[in-house]
Amino acid sequence: MAGGGQEAASAVGNRKVVLKSYVTGYPVVEDMEVVADSVELRVPAGVTGVLVKNLYLSCDPWMRGRMSKPQEGAAVSVPPFAIGEALVNYGVCKVVESTHPGFKAGELVWGMSGWEEYTLLTQPEPLLFKITHPELPLSHYSGVLGMTGLTAYSGFVEVGRPKKGDAVFVSAASGAVGQIVGQLAKISGCYVVGSAGSDEKVALLKTKFGYDDAFNYKSEASLAAALKRRFPDGIDLFYDNVGGATLDAALLQMRHGGRVVVCGMISQYNLEEPEGVRNLRVIIPMAVRLEGVNVMDYFHTYARFEEEMAGYIKEGKVKVVEDVVEGIDKAPQALIGLFSGKNVGKQLVVVATD
Amino acid sequence: MAGGGQEAASAVGNRKVVLKSYVTGYPVVEDMEVVADSVELRVPAGVTGVLVKNLYLSCDPWMRGRMSKPQEGAAVSVPPFAIGEALVNYGVCKVVESTHPGFKAGELVWGMSGWEEYTLLTQPEPLLFKITHPELPLSHYSGVLGMTGLTAYSGFVEVGRPKKGDAVFVSAASGAVGQIVGQLAKISGCYVVGSAGSDEKVALLKTKFGYDDAFNYKSEASLAAALKRRFPDGIDLFYDNVGGATLDAALLQMRHGGRVVVCGMISQYNLEEPEGVRNLRVIIPMAVRLEGVNVMDYFHTYARFEEEMAGYIKEGKVKVVEDVVEGIDKAPQALIGLFSGKNVGKQLVVVATD
Repeated sequence: MAGGGQEAASAVGNRKVVLKSYVTGYPVVEDMEVVADSVELRVPAGVTGVLVKNLYLSCDPWMRGRMSKPQEGAAVSVPPFAIGEALVNYGVCKVVESTHPGFKAGELVWGMSGWEEYTLLTQPEPLLFKITHPELPLSHYSGVLGMTGLTAYSGFVEVGRPKKGDAVFVSAASGAVGQIVGQLAKISGCYVVGSAGSDEKVALLKTKFGYDDAFNYKSEASLAAALKRRFPDGIDLFYDNVGGATLDAALLQMRHGGRVVVCGMISQYNLEEPEGVRNLRVIIPMAVRLEGVNVMDYFHTYARFEEEMAGYIKEGKVKVVEDVVEGIDKAPQALIGLFSGKNVGKQLVVVATD
Repeated sequence: MAGGGQEAASAVGNRKVVLKSYVTGYPVVEDMEVVADSVELRVPAGVTGVLVKNLYLSCDPWMRGRMSKPQEGAAVSVPPFAIGEALVNYGVCKVVESTHPGFKAGELVWGMSGWEEYTLLTQPEPLLFKITHPELPLSHYSGVLGMTGLTAYSGFVEVGRPKKGDAVFVSAASGAVGQIVGQLAKISGCYVVGSAGSDEKVALLKTKFGYDDAFNYKSEASLAAALKRRFPDGIDLFYDNVGGATLDAALLQMRHGGRVVVCGMISQYNLEEPEGVRNLRVIIPMAVRLEGVNVMDYFHTYARFEEEMAGYIKEGKVKVVEDVVEGIDKAPQALIGLFSGKNVGKQLVVVATD
């Protein structure tokens, strides 16, 4: 076929992480497979799109939901991953070729892309953003300057509406979102306590992220008592990434008019039947508000957020810990490590450095 | 003793409903006792207070919480009832004598009083209000124009923030609060569906209270399916008086940005261990807000509320169904009837008519 030789000349290897079958319970490495594929390094004729080279992949707990079959009768905002195709999530990319007027070759971007070496994005908007602070570590755009940071910021500021002097509790506090929330709480003049799952993480909370206090929930006989000791007058704002028993214990300590920012429930994502939250009734006399945060609702505020957060990073007011794994082959292991708390800080995978 | 004869002349019988012991599980009539006591019909010398004659007692599910020992470690806003003393709740009263500058003999008031014939209120404020629309049925001040109405109004308007066209679901919809919420929803231009526990109540919802649709939850094999059929595009605002399985089913149908006004959990108050709410995680992708409503936060708005609600009643926009029991002896039975859904509409007890 005419042109066949030319096309073959531009084809390169494209390893991708695919889902082999839907997952029940905790995911294991074998639920995914890294397969060798190839890709033409150009946008096909007649297609408007952006071909990107993926540099950093973000590993996020919310991906677990897309690995399950959707719950019967439930409204879902995002469909499950397609079996046999590359997983999809936020990442940092470089534009190889673009026929889309908004992007051009060589630009650095972040947004929704594939777990593979190259991805053709035929609908780049609204989830592909220019990187306007290349002087900061590029990896930050897979975390603190990307979806993770916007989630932490929007959830804390817009949903949690912190006031100076508020007593703030953050669960999974050294994680990707938690580490940012704690530092934003200090910037806002709050008292902030975090929980985490190892003494190493607890130390990080106190020494690196400026938490006023922190505890290892695995060492506490009673979560309720652990919270009561640290919040004798109750909690004004609880930023929850964990759900389950942690949420139940914190509900009992909420102050009148307290707010629970429901950002994640990592304790629940791998259970076949979620644990019930039993103490919800306390929200009636205490007039507590629980509100879910979906970062998609805040992408229109990204430019303003990016400026503010880039400023905090440059001033040293927000410090960042990333747990970096090298190579797309290690991506499945990195992802499942989130659910046993193996990661310290933001988990990401380097696919390529430029 | 000098004056003894004079005091004896003003003493009258004062029957009271007392709690015999703290309750576990469903309360029964025998948990309470109507005891004969007596009272001097005057405010004791040197005391600033208001002696009231109780006319109507309000029976409210929230009283159940005060019949239990408080939960270990939980912050509580209201202490349990004292064993052997009269229960306490909102009611309609007439001032017999007052040494408090805010009240005078002969005035009609409503507020927090005792489950007895006469009560001496030594701290009448802030929970004793003048009745300024005596042209309306006095009993309404134990319901639609009292705490119940303010709860329904504040919860729906201030917490729920309805918008015209919203799809609204109300549980326990013919109950004291639910009947008012449904009619406020229609006044606000919403589509409103209610659930109740008998066909008689369902009929009342459709014919009397103007609900667009209603169903008997006891006749539905699946609450989730019953809601899905009636809300094919989801629920914008759920005003929940029931909790438990009803809340769990409704969570799955909430629209993006939906609001759950958590007013009551009558399905849970008599359980030794509350049922867990299992579908809470859907509030994350759907950015749903759940917020408890404590009427105490809204008493400062009472005067404005009273004018608005009195207007609706006079215009026929809010209709009221009251389930009236005659005589303080029947008060225990009336109270426990709430928990098996015996009451149709607002449950109240007439102690005296003037």
